[in-house]
Amino acid sequence: MRIHHLGIAVESLATAVPLFEKLLGKAPESEENVADQKVRVAVFRLGESRLELLEGTSADSPITRFISKRGQGIHHLTLTVPNLAEALGKLENDGIHLIDREPRVGAGNERVAFLHPSSTAGVLIELIEES
Amino acid sequence: MRIHHLGIAVESLATAVPLFEKLLGKAPESEENVADQKVRVAVFRLGESRLELLEGTSADSPITRFISKRGQGIHHLTLTVPNLAEALGKLENDGIHLIDREPRVGAGNERVAFLHPSSTAGVLIELIEES
Repeated sequence: MRIHHLGIAVESLATAVPLFEKLLGKAPESEENVADQKVRVAVFRLGESRLELLEGTSADSPITRFISKRGQGIHHLTLTVPNLAEALGKLENDGIHLIDREPRVGAGNERVAFLHPSSTAGVLIELIEES
Repeated sequence: MRIHHLGIAVESLATAVPLFEKLLGKAPESEENVADQKVRVAVFRLGESRLELLEGTSADSPITRFISKRGQGIHHLTLTVPNLAEALGKLENDGIHLIDREPRVGAGNERVAFLHPSSTAGVLIELIEES
């Protein structure tokens, strides 16, 4: 298990990307629209993990709504698991509250699922299957 | 550069540690008081990074105040740098607002410094020197 990425909600990639370029000393390795999530994402590689800067592309994007309520900042933490269906079954048995009870297909065609922050000390955690 | 750790503000280690044990499938590798930060910390290793669960030990602990304002959740992100004084000088030149303009000595005798979240899209970032 490792940190796959941190999703950071930002008001504007045009402002945030240059800041993180200074901080990390390099340019993002990719920048793209993820239409079904209503976000534009800039990805910086950082060791075995990544920082993903997320800008909402419409008023009803989860990222835009998060920023309206809480301001910019870390939105979610994504951890790898070897077998997602198995992990979800085990966590549900352990009394962890799941947002997605079954794996669904994420932006890069990966299998992902979110856990409910009420079970994880207020942290929105996404699991991603990675063999 | 890598993610050294994520600091997660929790109301109670007694509640949060068992939750993260289920999530990560293992016990924390350490649990200790850090008197000068007014926190008790439980550390879970996660690949090349760590999750640090932080419980405030007094009403004026930064963690207790964070939870009063924002609720439980991710409090800070710590990144490694090879030379902290050099990194701070470069970031200040680049217009990044620093909380600590000089390295200070952190809990585990490491040299650390915080950047101001106004310069980093609302994320409280700590740098730690690691050669």
